[in-house]
Amino acid sequence: MAISSLLFYQPPSPPSGDVITQRQSRSCRGHIVKPYCCLRTEVTTRPKSLSKDYKLSWTEELSRAYGHHQLPSINWDKFEDIDDDIFQDLVDKRCVDNIRMLIVDSVQNAKAGHPGMALGMAEVGYVLYRHAMKYNQRNPDWINRDRFVLSAGHGCLLQYVCLHLAGFDSVQIQDLQRLCKLGSRTPGHPENIVTRGIEVTTGPLGQGVANAVGIALAEAHLAARYNKPDAVIFDHRTYCIMGDGCAMEGIAHEAASLAAHWKLHKLTLIYDDNHNTIDGPTSLAFSEDVSARFRALGWNTITVENIHSDLKSFKDALHLAFNETERPTFIKVKTLIGKLSGKEGTSKAHHGTFNEEDVKKMRERINWGCREPFHVIPMLHREMQEQIDNGERLEKEWYSKLYAYQSKYPQHVAELRLLLSNGLLPGWENLLPKWNMSDPVDATRGYSDKCLNHLAKVLPGLIGGSADLATSNKAYLHDHGDFQSNSPWGRNIRFGVREHAMGGISNGIALHGSGLIPFAATFLIFSDYMKNPIRLSALSHAGVIYIMTHDSIGLGEDGPTHQPVEQLAGLRAIPRLLVFRPADGNETAGAYKVAVKNRDRPSLIALSRQKVQANLEGTVSEEVQRGGYVISDNSGGQLPEIILIGTGSELCLCEMSARKLREGGRRVRVVSLVCWRLFDWQPREYKERVLPSNVIKRVSVEAGSPVGWREYVGREGVVIGVDEFGASGPYSEVFKKFGFTVENVTKVAETLLCK
Amino acid sequence: MAISSLLFYQPPSPPSGDVITQRQSRSCRGHIVKPYCCLRTEVTTRPKSLSKDYKLSWTEELSRAYGHHQLPSINWDKFEDIDDDIFQDLVDKRCVDNIRMLIVDSVQNAKAGHPGMALGMAEVGYVLYRHAMKYNQRNPDWINRDRFVLSAGHGCLLQYVCLHLAGFDSVQIQDLQRLCKLGSRTPGHPENIVTRGIEVTTGPLGQGVANAVGIALAEAHLAARYNKPDAVIFDHRTYCIMGDGCAMEGIAHEAASLAAHWKLHKLTLIYDDNHNTIDGPTSLAFSEDVSARFRALGWNTITVENIHSDLKSFKDALHLAFNETERPTFIKVKTLIGKLSGKEGTSKAHHGTFNEEDVKKMRERINWGCREPFHVIPMLHREMQEQIDNGERLEKEWYSKLYAYQSKYPQHVAELRLLLSNGLLPGWENLLPKWNMSDPVDATRGYSDKCLNHLAKVLPGLIGGSADLATSNKAYLHDHGDFQSNSPWGRNIRFGVREHAMGGISNGIALHGSGLIPFAATFLIFSDYMKNPIRLSALSHAGVIYIMTHDSIGLGEDGPTHQPVEQLAGLRAIPRLLVFRPADGNETAGAYKVAVKNRDRPSLIALSRQKVQANLEGTVSEEVQRGGYVISDNSGGQLPEIILIGTGSELCLCEMSARKLREGGRRVRVVSLVCWRLFDWQPREYKERVLPSNVIKRVSVEAGSPVGWREYVGREGVVIGVDEFGASGPYSEVFKKFGFTVENVTKVAETLLCK
Repeated sequence: MAISSLLFYQPPSPPSGDVITQRQSRSCRGHIVKPYCCLRTEVTTRPKSLSKDYKLSWTEELSRAYGHHQLPSINWDKFEDIDDDIFQDLVDKRCVDNIRMLIVDSVQNAKAGHPGMALGMAEVGYVLYRHAMKYNQRNPDWINRDRFVLSAGHGCLLQYVCLHLAGFDSVQIQDLQRLCKLGSRTPGHPENIVTRGIEVTTGPLGQGVANAVGIALAEAHLAARYNKPDAVIFDHRTYCIMGDGCAMEGIAHEAASLAAHWKLHKLTLIYDDNHNTIDGPTSLAFSEDVSARFRALGWNTITVENIHSDLKSFKDALHLAFNETERPTFIKVKTLIGKLSGKEGTSKAHHGTFNEEDVKKMRERINWGCREPFHVIPMLHREMQEQIDNGERLEKEWYSKLYAYQSKYPQHVAELRLLLSNGLLPGWENLLPKWNMSDPVDATRGYSDKCLNHLAKVLPGLIGGSADLATSNKAYLHDHGDFQSNSPWGRNIRFGVREHAMGGISNGIALHGSGLIPFAATFLIFSDYMKNPIRLSALSHAGVIYIMTHDSIGLGEDGPTHQPVEQLAGLRAIPRLLVFRPADGNETAGAYKVAVKNRDRPSLIALSRQKVQANLEGTVSEEVQRGGYVISDNSGGQLPEIILIGTGSELCLCEMSARKLREGGRRVRVVSLVCWRLFDWQPREYKERVLPSNVIKRVSVEAGSPVGWREYVGREGVVIGVDEFGASGPYSEVFKKFGFTVENVTKVAETLLCK
Repeated sequence: MAISSLLFYQPPSPPSGDVITQRQSRSCRGHIVKPYCCLRTEVTTRPKSLSKDYKLSWTEELSRAYGHHQLPSINWDKFEDIDDDIFQDLVDKRCVDNIRMLIVDSVQNAKAGHPGMALGMAEVGYVLYRHAMKYNQRNPDWINRDRFVLSAGHGCLLQYVCLHLAGFDSVQIQDLQRLCKLGSRTPGHPENIVTRGIEVTTGPLGQGVANAVGIALAEAHLAARYNKPDAVIFDHRTYCIMGDGCAMEGIAHEAASLAAHWKLHKLTLIYDDNHNTIDGPTSLAFSEDVSARFRALGWNTITVENIHSDLKSFKDALHLAFNETERPTFIKVKTLIGKLSGKEGTSKAHHGTFNEEDVKKMRERINWGCREPFHVIPMLHREMQEQIDNGERLEKEWYSKLYAYQSKYPQHVAELRLLLSNGLLPGWENLLPKWNMSDPVDATRGYSDKCLNHLAKVLPGLIGGSADLATSNKAYLHDHGDFQSNSPWGRNIRFGVREHAMGGISNGIALHGSGLIPFAATFLIFSDYMKNPIRLSALSHAGVIYIMTHDSIGLGEDGPTHQPVEQLAGLRAIPRLLVFRPADGNETAGAYKVAVKNRDRPSLIALSRQKVQANLEGTVSEEVQRGGYVISDNSGGQLPEIILIGTGSELCLCEMSARKLREGGRRVRVVSLVCWRLFDWQPREYKERVLPSNVIKRVSVEAGSPVGWREYVGREGVVIGVDEFGASGPYSEVFKKFGFTVENVTKVAETLLCK
């Protein structure tokens, strides 16, 4: 059932109020929204009184596992007298044993995978899915579910096992048995587009931390906008596991700094402090005090000293995190990588299979006997069922609240409903500005400014910001304030000079799935700093809009360190990404239209610093969706003698040059190739119509790397591009130096025509 | 004079020992090399007794500036009685005033530039160049000079002014007057290839911090290898200015973590804490305690509260840094951005010019009168002369030491001499391994391993490492130990999972200019994390060798997050960079040969995870330098009917497919296009010989983005590439899924042949 249809679903029975702990004055975001977000279950560290039946059901398994020689103080014959806490601890411990065996069996079966972190963090995975997180496995898209992000993505096997035990359809035992197989639902790193229950695609280290910050930001933002004192719609926690690799990566640091700045207190980062990375002990390259660093950033920090023998200490840590109402929480959990195996505590456990002898010993160590591989203790399923039931109940509760909300706050509901469908108000595109030829000139970044601010009025989900270049990027929603800890409803995010985190956070916002439409802005050159998250947007179907200004050597004085040359080529090569380089106001609006429409695909709009016409004669906003089209042609019924192909700020050079050539009697066509990928996707006939194969004299003009242009100019064509680094100087002089003048384009074209 | 010829130069007169403070037990790197590196001048915070003449020369200027109404306690008529410390402070203050006016004049003249940081940090720049750093402006390449890196590159005007005052030929007053002009020696960001005295090219924030760490690493490494108790060759400090932007960027954090891990105590990072970035006050996005964070990383931290009124406090901080023998030092200097101007303390001062009224007020504020723009107080030149003389003397001293060294340690001298020329032993390339067709198969990363380790024997400057993937990248020099704080002579750098810093640090090592040949290794996909430093290697002529393994979807199980697709296209588009994708052992050796030879140009070698033949029939190591060549052809005297073009692990697919086609009677050529750029640079006739334009049936086979291949296959050719994200699965199945099989290549070729 789609979220949109579920939104106004009325639960079949009234909620049973006693299930939910009302915490009227806790767990709130900052002081402003304090009274609004009070609905939340506790982390269940205190078990309810355990029934005799329950104890009976576990006794055989537990006594087998932890019989007299392991726990002489326990009399299994009088199982009903065993202290409830101790009993629950033993149950938890046995469940974790089972998880470890599933991990080992999966790796052995696949002859591939990363068991080290999965084994070491088995307790953490288990406690999160069994005791802490709220989710409904039957509706993994429930918008108010807790989110879990595995930043140490190579440990995905732990997540797959947990999803399986938590009853997610997407991970059956057969899926665990197909780990890392082509086409399986259990690929080598977690992919949200492959496996339901996976929130984001992770693997490149540190990205997940930024994603989690983005998700927590989305929750905080929506809670501030939509929650009411008597109706809490958004109130979930975000959990993220990071490893030593994430702890070293700059992106995770950038994101962590922002999380504390924003006081995202519902974010809990769990650091797998196992002292090992691929190359050996972390001491090879890592001496810092990670917790002290997080404290310096403004985090609440907790250390769990020995989770393997004291699982409760981790539950307690989650409790503390839960009760923290200002700071995000960083829980350092000391673990043994490859726990249980012979490689325990060494970097050898990081990835790879185990030898048979080791597997045998592991089984002995936990008294697993000769159970078949992939065995799950039936009681483990029942154990998880409790959390599953809880999640279902909570979701029902939530719908009940929502039902009340829609009658009390109809004006908010309309917007909320819009958001939770796809965020696009019918006819939104009509609000995009239009320019005509008499409008004053501006840079395309200026036209972008107008597009963004018009869109902000009709797209309630539009939210984003710049990496400290808002004024230069002109990427600021003027009527919508800043997202800050004391104004989480603000729709302008101040990322600071942190491009990499900006990308990862934007992916998190997009994949929160709540209809938010994130935009992220910087200079095009600094796409270099966020290349991987841009790629991950494309891979994970995150509809982020990247606004990249100062898109060529045309930025002038700042010189070659700031002048993009090869960036467009590299970005265009990213699968699925739409890269636009609009030539004027109308093409800019056209680019926004396609970008906004594509909610499961990222777009990148490259914009000029220097001024260009508001409406270059011949450009058509609507044509941008085709990627390329003819803006002018004087050939009449004939084929043109030559085609000049341009993008962005160079399209007008093509047009002006064409006019000169036409004055000389030439038949000249000018084509705007505003988005290569969209053009490539057009039917062959359309492409042939725009670039007829019989016209082999073609010149492309783009102030960027020539790489890739041959596709469009053909073997005989000429590519006017930049194949070296730019130069510091006034824009017009730099353009001249590199041949971007009407004179040069005309000369090149004339030479080609005379060939 | 080149360093190599200077190396054995004998100074004209014996050194005057009293100039240099011998510090027998201080300023040493860790406990191992303690007795070796003891030669160093103090930071001159205690002025020598000031002569009457000296005071007289300054009195008119100082009394004009700080006359009775400013400093009523000073009686200028009795200037000779003024306390020396106070007098020196006033001189310093006036020099800083002059620097500020030069900054203002330059910006006003250029109508562009970034005065904010330059004005705020004028004291810091002045003290470094006047009182702290050792350098010889007449030989800016003196290998033991102190290094200065401006990570906040936009503040380069400060550095230009300081270089000018320090007597560097490269920055004359005319150069300051040509700030940001096309072709000037004072571009908008500092470029080492444009302006002598600039060590590295900076601008993209945070990079400079990593560069500085690399430079400090190089010094520590060389000191450990070559210094002797009685002869110190390498003993310089590295100073780096960073701004708030650098403080936020992940790369700076990664590099800072490593600097502390390595105990690079001669590194001093000076943080311009001016509370402003482009978008406004840092409070918009930055709440962390930066000093506490650096302490958590293991740095010595110092705060200078008010440098503008207490310049001595900064000198004292430098003293403390100088005396620190374990930790790198982080000095937080609280400044006012745009100090002196009307925009002082606000983000408006960051960049842009001043209005005339403001300039007038600034002149009034410092009693500058109506001096011409670009005025330099003559005594300021004399002031700087003292440091200049000091530098020249120190260099002479150094040569004297070196002279003694060469007679006492002849065996070390040969190696040192080699290093300081270009690091390449004549005939070094003969040591590269060769493979023949009977050798066992391996991945090209395996062949790379052998190349690297053979090279390490003949290239004493070869040093580098991996971002925690040494075993996977096979990038480890087996006989040369780890570079660690207790073994700084080690030649394997453990970067941890910090790709971005690895790139920046490698640039610093290369640009240290001491003949070190840095290599940096990771998976090709993670070039995404270090795109900008790779670009900066190319821009700043840093001969870094990037070793990028797991270079395609052929890496298999790890799946699309780890499978590079578009990376090669993006990297090939970087100007100047040489990207190699060798097909077997011999091409790998050929790639290393070109990479090592090119000491002012970076190379990137993309290597397979999966096994390929050691010597694919027809490959020739020597031919790699041409970028592309024919590996097989059965056409005899005729032209081939079809050309199959491959790179890397797909070249053998081409060859096997060619054999099948030949069996069918076809004339087929196979071309290895191992490095596009090198091939593009070949003479037209050579290119025509390899890819005759009359052969229009061509197929390229590369497991990566098709972007750019049209250049080589022409309009009629077929590009077999990957235009979507890969998939998790065993390598052979993934390859099959995407069409990388002999069968498919043959089929595509046959279809083309039948057209």
